[in-house]
Amino acid sequence: MSDKEIPDVIVGRLPRYLRALQRIANDGQRTTSSQELGEQLGISAAQIRKDLSQFGEFGKQGTGYSVTFLVSQLQQILNVDRVWDMALVGAGDLGHAIAHYQGFADCGFRIALVFDSDSQKIGTHVGGFIVQDSASLVAAVKAAKITIAMITVPSNSAQMVSDQLVQAGVRAILNYAPVILNVPDEVHVQYIDPVIHLQRMTFYLD
Amino acid sequence: MSDKEIPDVIVGRLPRYLRALQRIANDGQRTTSSQELGEQLGISAAQIRKDLSQFGEFGKQGTGYSVTFLVSQLQQILNVDRVWDMALVGAGDLGHAIAHYQGFADCGFRIALVFDSDSQKIGTHVGGFIVQDSASLVAAVKAAKITIAMITVPSNSAQMVSDQLVQAGVRAILNYAPVILNVPDEVHVQYIDPVIHLQRMTFYLD
Repeated sequence: MSDKEIPDVIVGRLPRYLRALQRIANDGQRTTSSQELGEQLGISAAQIRKDLSQFGEFGKQGTGYSVTFLVSQLQQILNVDRVWDMALVGAGDLGHAIAHYQGFADCGFRIALVFDSDSQKIGTHVGGFIVQDSASLVAAVKAAKITIAMITVPSNSAQMVSDQLVQAGVRAILNYAPVILNVPDEVHVQYIDPVIHLQRMTFYLD
Repeated sequence: MSDKEIPDVIVGRLPRYLRALQRIANDGQRTTSSQELGEQLGISAAQIRKDLSQFGEFGKQGTGYSVTFLVSQLQQILNVDRVWDMALVGAGDLGHAIAHYQGFADCGFRIALVFDSDSQKIGTHVGGFIVQDSASLVAAVKAAKITIAMITVPSNSAQMVSDQLVQAGVRAILNYAPVILNVPDEVHVQYIDPVIHLQRMTFYLD
């Protein structure tokens, strides 16, 4: 089945499976089951089996899944059996936090370039990176052939930054600014929005 | 239909509908359609109609939805027709960024207390709040009757902070630390994990 035919809602669950499996691997466990994964993730075992079956036969009836095999298969499916260089645009508090984030390395990602338009920040060090002038963003991102970027600028400049990133060849944007970005169809955008997560929980509170 | 019977995957879409509707309202538009919402969100119009129909009849055939009415209905359903006080634990870069975040106010949330265990940070100001000693967390959160918290501490202390929050009566936790928290069944946890979003996009890249 080609990528295009896999429903996006299934694709959205695969990184969570991979995350859980990597945790299980770190605990030294060699096999797991859809039941165990399901309990960790709050997803039914049947759903997990059904999702994975879209991509092939990964487990054996009765013996479960080999953790390392399923990790490597999911890494291939998600194209993170390689390391993607990323551009980070916005070197404020949030940009600093992300530049220092330790969680990218083992998951297929690496920050390669950091930009800001504030002359006070340009040339300073953020998490091992020298902040570059956003004026050079298009040329620098294009030269480095970077296709993934994170936007941590204020809301009112997020669309402009997004336009520049797209112009530079970026095809996947993780946007922390609370605005919806207009991008061409072939560019993927994901949003980090704490309000969405909070409201999902208040539904259950009273 | 009681809250318990609504599938969680539908609940997860409601905040996105509300977000889109508030944007439409801000643009001065008075009515909208499931088609328009669907285009903005990348969700089919049929799915949106089906989701909303779980909660009642909100639109009229041919005339669409009244934006303000649907906003107020969704706010009621999600329990954000009130303002929830929140505790923020961890006053590092990420905590600073969140304390300064302007997006909570109109969405039903307000930071009320900020904690850190670092003596260098305790007593300092972060986004209008004085950072309190985490040693006083349980008593202070309990006294303020706060039921929602955000965790922005390093991974190795996140579970301890979570235990303290639960002990203090917190029932919903938004966790930015890249670890899975063990909480009692009645406590809700949502995770902000950039890797999950990035891997969801690399699936489509090559």
